[in-house]
Amino acid sequence: MSEQLIQTLRSNTKEAVPGAIELLKNYLRYPTISAQNKAIPETVLFVVQQIQETGGEAQVLDDLGGNPVVYGYFAAGSNGDSTKTLLFYNHYDVQPPEPLNEWNSEPFEPTIIDGKLFARGVADNKGDFIARLTAIKVLQQLEGGLPCNIKFMVEGEEEIGSPNLAPYLKKYKDLFKADACIWEFGGKDQEDRVSMVAGIKGMAYLELTCTGADIDMHSSVGAYVDNAAWRLVQALASMKNEKNEILVNGFYDGIEEPTDNEKEAVKNLPFNEEKVGELYGLKRPLITVAQGIDPREAMVFNPTMTICGLESGYTGEGAKTVLPKSAKVKLDCRLVPGQDPEHILSCIQNHLKLHSFDDVEVVMINGQKAYRSNYNHPFVTHVLDTASAVYEKSPVLAPNSAGTGPMYEFGHQLHLPIVSTGIGWVQSKAHAPNESIRLTDFEEGVVYMAYMLAGFSAAVTANNERQFENTK
Amino acid sequence: MSEQLIQTLRSNTKEAVPGAIELLKNYLRYPTISAQNKAIPETVLFVVQQIQETGGEAQVLDDLGGNPVVYGYFAAGSNGDSTKTLLFYNHYDVQPPEPLNEWNSEPFEPTIIDGKLFARGVADNKGDFIARLTAIKVLQQLEGGLPCNIKFMVEGEEEIGSPNLAPYLKKYKDLFKADACIWEFGGKDQEDRVSMVAGIKGMAYLELTCTGADIDMHSSVGAYVDNAAWRLVQALASMKNEKNEILVNGFYDGIEEPTDNEKEAVKNLPFNEEKVGELYGLKRPLITVAQGIDPREAMVFNPTMTICGLESGYTGEGAKTVLPKSAKVKLDCRLVPGQDPEHILSCIQNHLKLHSFDDVEVVMINGQKAYRSNYNHPFVTHVLDTASAVYEKSPVLAPNSAGTGPMYEFGHQLHLPIVSTGIGWVQSKAHAPNESIRLTDFEEGVVYMAYMLAGFSAAVTANNERQFENTK
Repeated sequence: MSEQLIQTLRSNTKEAVPGAIELLKNYLRYPTISAQNKAIPETVLFVVQQIQETGGEAQVLDDLGGNPVVYGYFAAGSNGDSTKTLLFYNHYDVQPPEPLNEWNSEPFEPTIIDGKLFARGVADNKGDFIARLTAIKVLQQLEGGLPCNIKFMVEGEEEIGSPNLAPYLKKYKDLFKADACIWEFGGKDQEDRVSMVAGIKGMAYLELTCTGADIDMHSSVGAYVDNAAWRLVQALASMKNEKNEILVNGFYDGIEEPTDNEKEAVKNLPFNEEKVGELYGLKRPLITVAQGIDPREAMVFNPTMTICGLESGYTGEGAKTVLPKSAKVKLDCRLVPGQDPEHILSCIQNHLKLHSFDDVEVVMINGQKAYRSNYNHPFVTHVLDTASAVYEKSPVLAPNSAGTGPMYEFGHQLHLPIVSTGIGWVQSKAHAPNESIRLTDFEEGVVYMAYMLAGFSAAVTANNERQFENTK
Repeated sequence: MSEQLIQTLRSNTKEAVPGAIELLKNYLRYPTISAQNKAIPETVLFVVQQIQETGGEAQVLDDLGGNPVVYGYFAAGSNGDSTKTLLFYNHYDVQPPEPLNEWNSEPFEPTIIDGKLFARGVADNKGDFIARLTAIKVLQQLEGGLPCNIKFMVEGEEEIGSPNLAPYLKKYKDLFKADACIWEFGGKDQEDRVSMVAGIKGMAYLELTCTGADIDMHSSVGAYVDNAAWRLVQALASMKNEKNEILVNGFYDGIEEPTDNEKEAVKNLPFNEEKVGELYGLKRPLITVAQGIDPREAMVFNPTMTICGLESGYTGEGAKTVLPKSAKVKLDCRLVPGQDPEHILSCIQNHLKLHSFDDVEVVMINGQKAYRSNYNHPFVTHVLDTASAVYEKSPVLAPNSAGTGPMYEFGHQLHLPIVSTGIGWVQSKAHAPNESIRLTDFEEGVVYMAYMLAGFSAAVTANNERQFENTK
């Protein structure tokens, strides 16, 4: 029965894909860069129209500030279970496309080359939204229509850290009420296995600015005038050593010890160090090697402190002999369950004060807590089992991803299990030039999502809510 | 007699200034940015035309590569001493104008506000060239014309470190032969005293690049992937400590101990720490305070290692969660007599290797040795004495400046004493936004240069070349 259903879904999907790709291309042409507040209203309108044209109800929520949040609703069909609801979380905003000169095609002109669709946002996260809508269309063609209620939350500030999402979740928690949630993203790993996560790391994205003077100076005064760039370098070097150990007092406070089944799950995650090196063209060994740490453990259980950007003085061609008035660093700390971004901020502020770097100012651009679903929840099992049935290779499911999103607020407000899965691949290059998806992954992803939805109600009906708390 | 001469020169200069300023404005409209190879041929043509229209001979030297070097020659008049020659060194290229948003006027549209002329290059070094030409015009009006032969070298790569000057000096050393040289620049200090130097620091301007990968990555992989920006920060922190001590082995090799009269001269240099702080809007004390060093000594006798620019990853608005593939720093080491830029480069390369920073590559963009004239040469005394006669406040003369130029090659090839003096002021902001000169300084500078030239032959005739070697 399930094999037959999968065959039907495959064949319906094949027919639906060409139109879906055209739709996706139109979506990708909006340069919806939230960091620069670009193309927001027109993208919102597009998202609303797609939900409506697929037969859903849409509502634009914009009464609490920030970019609008789009709510979408599709009722269960005549054969469906109207007591069960699945919620999709997506976002319509994308990262800035820079550095532009490294793109082989225009970032906002979707381009198909060798079965891959290239564009900013195609993997993160516009492709998944269209794939999910397409899965709904495919299910609508079955007798009896949708197997359960389906809701969407499509927000527009994920790439800047969802600073306004919490109040919407709080105010509209009844509107978004659901039994489980499929998170925005996912993809295939180096071995072409679908890689899913039941949680997410948190983040404290900080900007540190050292100001030394009101004006840039001739660099000859470096004999006696202090240098903001040197100060920032020294401040950073005091925060993390060459062994990659974070030296900020209190940074590791409150971290929850992973459970045994989480540890076990991590041990079984695939990881091919050589392939990671090839993928990015790494020039040096992984930093975990020096630490004697399994990179899979680092990925799931360890917090980070990453320099995302450095800027000071003259950076053009040739020599400009200037002593810069200021220097800036963007610092991304990925957090694990138990860490609090506000606490991280104050620890770093204290550290700088303690080390006499009073001239370095810290601002938090984005703060989010980590989240992990209960790894034993029947929904988590269902997601994994249905993926095993649809995909050729066995899927893998990590307790949480190395990446971040506003999952903590979801879990906290809506109290549901969350799994993230999607249509990316190992070379999707989210946040980097030449972002892409493979068209075959898009098609398979539609089939999978339709099949997962088909059995969703039965799976979560088996759940005793008392027994399976959604977070440990 | 000398008072009367000064009066005549003042009155002739006053008449000549309005035309000279119009000429200077035309010169400043060329965006002659050598680092970007901009507007070179048209600026060369302008320089040649000005020399010719002032009655001199001009020759464009371009047979040895790089931007052309302009040679100018004005023969002594009928009352002059045709056996004595003064050489002016100037350059027609300028620094890039960035950051553009900090200019109050267009950098290449000269603008007069409150008696000041604002434009990129007005203080460094186009204003001085026009002032010197104007001094020649003023002297030509005297009975008997020019008091000595005058030569010009106007080069076009000073702001990128004069990488091609040495071969021109070597090949054309007979053409540029002279008894003494007035260097490109100078100006008034905080107390409005004319500040001159009889030497110059050297430079090793380096670019250090750390490459970690072939592509920018999503910052979530920071849990296990090495970070080029962190590596560069650690490498830099290993090269100079928080006390401003340079930790690179061999960096201080070969430094010549200053002579007693040089030390004495430095002790008498004016320096007002408070005013320096106000001038730049400094946020912290001078670094010499922590070292217990007199900033005047640091300025003249101590080498530096200054970060001029830092660049890595995303530096735009907001948060971009990227792990950068590379990071770059521009590092300006000012050198004192005895230091060799090539040696500095190899010391830094060895240091990086020794500290396992093999992934940091070093390129020298600009290397120049320091130079000091003999502080007791009669030309040096004449320059100082005539400045005392023309300017209201006593001038000051340092053994060498904190800045740099290709003076070593001059001294080495032409074997003459060199003093740098010019028409800038303490707020000239060379290399920074809102570069300016004061029109009154321009006028006084013309009078001074004419008066210095009037007595030049007599002063250097008194010199016994054997007695006064030009460098110690």
